[in-house]
Amino acid sequence: MPKKPKGKIRIIPLGGINEIGKNLTVFEYGEDIIIIDCGLGFPDEDMLGVDLVIPDISYLELNRDKIRGIVLTHGHEDHIGAIPYLLRQINPPIYGTRLTLGIIKNKLEEHQLPYAPSLNCVNAGDVIKLGEISVEFIHVNHSIADACALAITTPLGTVIHSGDFKLDITPIDGEMMNLTRFGELGRKGVLLLMCESTNAERTGFTPSEKVVGRSLESIFTANPDKRIVIATFSSNVHRVQQIINTSVAHGRRVAVTGRSMLNIIGAAIELGYMTVPEGVLVDINELKRFKPEEITLITTGSQGEPMSALSRMAFADHSQITLGRNDLVVLSSSPIPGNEKLVGRIINELTKNGVSVFHDAMVEIHASGHACQEELKLLQALTRPKYFMPVHGEYRHLAANKALARDMGIDDSRIFIPDIGKVLEIDTKGARFAGTVPSGKVLVDGYGVGDVGNIVLRDRRHLSQDGLIVVVASVDTDAKLLLSGPDIVSRGFVYVRESEELMDEVRQIACDAINRCLEKRDRVDRTELKSAVKDDLSKYLYSKTKRKPMVLPVIMNL
Amino acid sequence: MPKKPKGKIRIIPLGGINEIGKNLTVFEYGEDIIIIDCGLGFPDEDMLGVDLVIPDISYLELNRDKIRGIVLTHGHEDHIGAIPYLLRQINPPIYGTRLTLGIIKNKLEEHQLPYAPSLNCVNAGDVIKLGEISVEFIHVNHSIADACALAITTPLGTVIHSGDFKLDITPIDGEMMNLTRFGELGRKGVLLLMCESTNAERTGFTPSEKVVGRSLESIFTANPDKRIVIATFSSNVHRVQQIINTSVAHGRRVAVTGRSMLNIIGAAIELGYMTVPEGVLVDINELKRFKPEEITLITTGSQGEPMSALSRMAFADHSQITLGRNDLVVLSSSPIPGNEKLVGRIINELTKNGVSVFHDAMVEIHASGHACQEELKLLQALTRPKYFMPVHGEYRHLAANKALARDMGIDDSRIFIPDIGKVLEIDTKGARFAGTVPSGKVLVDGYGVGDVGNIVLRDRRHLSQDGLIVVVASVDTDAKLLLSGPDIVSRGFVYVRESEELMDEVRQIACDAINRCLEKRDRVDRTELKSAVKDDLSKYLYSKTKRKPMVLPVIMNL
Repeated sequence: MPKKPKGKIRIIPLGGINEIGKNLTVFEYGEDIIIIDCGLGFPDEDMLGVDLVIPDISYLELNRDKIRGIVLTHGHEDHIGAIPYLLRQINPPIYGTRLTLGIIKNKLEEHQLPYAPSLNCVNAGDVIKLGEISVEFIHVNHSIADACALAITTPLGTVIHSGDFKLDITPIDGEMMNLTRFGELGRKGVLLLMCESTNAERTGFTPSEKVVGRSLESIFTANPDKRIVIATFSSNVHRVQQIINTSVAHGRRVAVTGRSMLNIIGAAIELGYMTVPEGVLVDINELKRFKPEEITLITTGSQGEPMSALSRMAFADHSQITLGRNDLVVLSSSPIPGNEKLVGRIINELTKNGVSVFHDAMVEIHASGHACQEELKLLQALTRPKYFMPVHGEYRHLAANKALARDMGIDDSRIFIPDIGKVLEIDTKGARFAGTVPSGKVLVDGYGVGDVGNIVLRDRRHLSQDGLIVVVASVDTDAKLLLSGPDIVSRGFVYVRESEELMDEVRQIACDAINRCLEKRDRVDRTELKSAVKDDLSKYLYSKTKRKPMVLPVIMNL
Repeated sequence: MPKKPKGKIRIIPLGGINEIGKNLTVFEYGEDIIIIDCGLGFPDEDMLGVDLVIPDISYLELNRDKIRGIVLTHGHEDHIGAIPYLLRQINPPIYGTRLTLGIIKNKLEEHQLPYAPSLNCVNAGDVIKLGEISVEFIHVNHSIADACALAITTPLGTVIHSGDFKLDITPIDGEMMNLTRFGELGRKGVLLLMCESTNAERTGFTPSEKVVGRSLESIFTANPDKRIVIATFSSNVHRVQQIINTSVAHGRRVAVTGRSMLNIIGAAIELGYMTVPEGVLVDINELKRFKPEEITLITTGSQGEPMSALSRMAFADHSQITLGRNDLVVLSSSPIPGNEKLVGRIINELTKNGVSVFHDAMVEIHASGHACQEELKLLQALTRPKYFMPVHGEYRHLAANKALARDMGIDDSRIFIPDIGKVLEIDTKGARFAGTVPSGKVLVDGYGVGDVGNIVLRDRRHLSQDGLIVVVASVDTDAKLLLSGPDIVSRGFVYVRESEELMDEVRQIACDAINRCLEKRDRVDRTELKSAVKDDLSKYLYSKTKRKPMVLPVIMNL
């Protein structure tokens, strides 16, 4: 009999829990750490001016010596997007499938790191050894090609991380998720299943990607006289392949617009993930050589992003393409919660210009990449884990996934709903939460990483609601004299040219406050003067306008 | 034979077209104007700090002598909410059904107008004469009681305005939409049908409100051991009545929280629109006298509004109620586009606290108040209008409604998609668009009506994204001396305490710019100095941070 293993497994999500995005999980055994995925998130509406959100990785910086590698499940931004930022702090080897690494290479070129990261290509089925931990990559279906789940084996047993997955029985590339391998692992015994939860509230099975192909086919057949413009996620290589196939079948050439679409299609063709017959792709600048009905245009912007190619085409702001009565636009996507209004705005504008629009509420023109309830239960049934941890989702999704595990007969005491920074510890005695490590959100704004925090955001919110009033004056505190000013500058508060009376009043109140302070005290400091101006003005402005502009007094003592 | 009428009908929407909200339509015949509805809208995401949006009514102010009255279709905010603002400019008599006026009275009390408006109660079936125009109120079903369509008759013929409607064959109050009357009018001849378009993209029929009652019944039956909290729209009197009925049937008392819910339930009971058996309603402060499972709590906040009673209960910020494992929350609503994330946040928080949550994606716990495609076509079939105008909706909805009219055999030349301020003219020769009148959005922010416009909003957006830097200096332009400063104040840009170096650099650049200007020129004015500081700093900051904070130089010349 083998010796009883002494180490502990410690699993610590640093992102992706209670949120959609910035997936990063720390997996520790003994003296070894591996990092599972390294994604970015998008800012909430209240994070004004913030471009991206990445996980706080200070725990990893503190334990840099133990880190054996980063293992990636697939190439979506929420799983790889924080890599350039992480690599500035630590530089472990990166393991991922070919398309995943192709996308990362593209991304790293934009970031200009001081050293070349170590990118190591794996295939589904491969097993890599990272210290005492070994990681097997298992093929799954998802809305990007080359996606994997991970079987992570330690002396204590095997942990399966599902990655993002769905079961597609008729996938475009012919490769169904490797159910057999999951079943084999289940038969040997799985210690813990970490399972994604995105669609855990949805009943049934997610439709096959092939369904979209059928819808495309009928749209193309019914509209032989129109140019067809299709917006979709650039990373959905199989979707793009289907669009190309349908175009070829209908004798159309294909043009592409939108930076990320051009990038990914380029990489996918180069790496052999996409097959395009010779002569089908045409440059967007050569469209004039063809009749509109001979063309399919593939574009970014299916989420209504205001700077995307589709948005610019809709609002007549695209340098090469104008859309009108002879065009048909297909939004091959479903709006991510929060983007409904942006997408709606594009649909309205297109419709106004006489463009026919198809979107997912009208035809089955999008298929989710995430497993619904029956698929989630299927993975549990195959892997038969001892412990279960729902990951990747908001709390409601995690709770729904937990409920599925309960239905599958896993006792509540063996289900762990994780949280960011919360440590799940597993040893021979069992599994339990055991303490926390530093974790959180780091905000990226322009070149700044982490220099925008709560105070800056609070000020931005304040400024965004009611603007500001700057009060500037020079005083001589010794002579107790107001030398100059107060000058009033206002932005984002009222339209100043039509509010002269109010501004005069503001100046007078500031003046009174300063003089009152100068007269009253033996010694006056600037802090006192500032408070007086701020208090008096804030009170006055609220009573007069019911608004609370930021009042910024700047008092110079000459 | 009657004389040929000489006048023209002019129909001018001042709101509610290409948008959801702020419905207001001007109807003119000869020397008479009537106003159909007078609603408010909610600000778009880019209207930072704005509370409400109301229609620009300058056309009405210019034609005040012609205005004979305001006729209201129903009591929703987007149809009556701008009345207090309109009444400050013009004071025509107001006509509406009893519940509609009851809600307006409530609202006017908060606004303290200098005079008492003339509120005139009508019933469905009534006809009122306003100059040469007569208006008949026709009962329709909607998500508020006492809703009407309008048949507006002039010497040129009858125009029907559908208001907001659905066909409910089994309505809670037993009164189905008056299809017969629409049919009679159709038989006599309808010149124009103005028809709402909200659900024109949805196939089939909207379910009856009664469906919600059945879902409530099964939820109550399955959860006899929990306190049940139901969030819904306060104005949906019939929904609230069903909640009360189900509670009574299950032996529960009913408590109410949320200001608007208390207001409307109060008004509805007083006016006889709601029947509550003696002793069923209990004050929220007396809940301790009952076991949780003996209570139903009706609350506002079904759209996730952050200050609503439900939100405060979810985030443990409600003075009387804390929700936990013994509670079940029903969101009897569907999120209005744009509110999905707010609603999701509440669902997450409730789930985290162990509360069971039911929402409309899980059970049929909400029914729309708007007609779907079959109902829209039914209204057309009954009224058989000569001309058709889709109203009340974004462009996509108007276009979808136009497509239905086409299906019903109305020729494109007789369908008019309106726009705000665009005049539809009808006379004996036909119908056509003929010019425009002033129209637009007036923004309400605090007490200010219209003082926030594009410049203020542009500044708020700028400030919200990157904050600001104020540079203050005193100079003597004659002596060409920098006397004091530059002082740098920054808000919403970077966390200043951790950016001392950057701030020092900023001060130095500002200093250099000022000195350069002072030295270079014979005469220096402040505008030049400001430009120099602004340009140099903006350039530096962008290169350093990739951000564009607002730079506000204030130069005092002593």
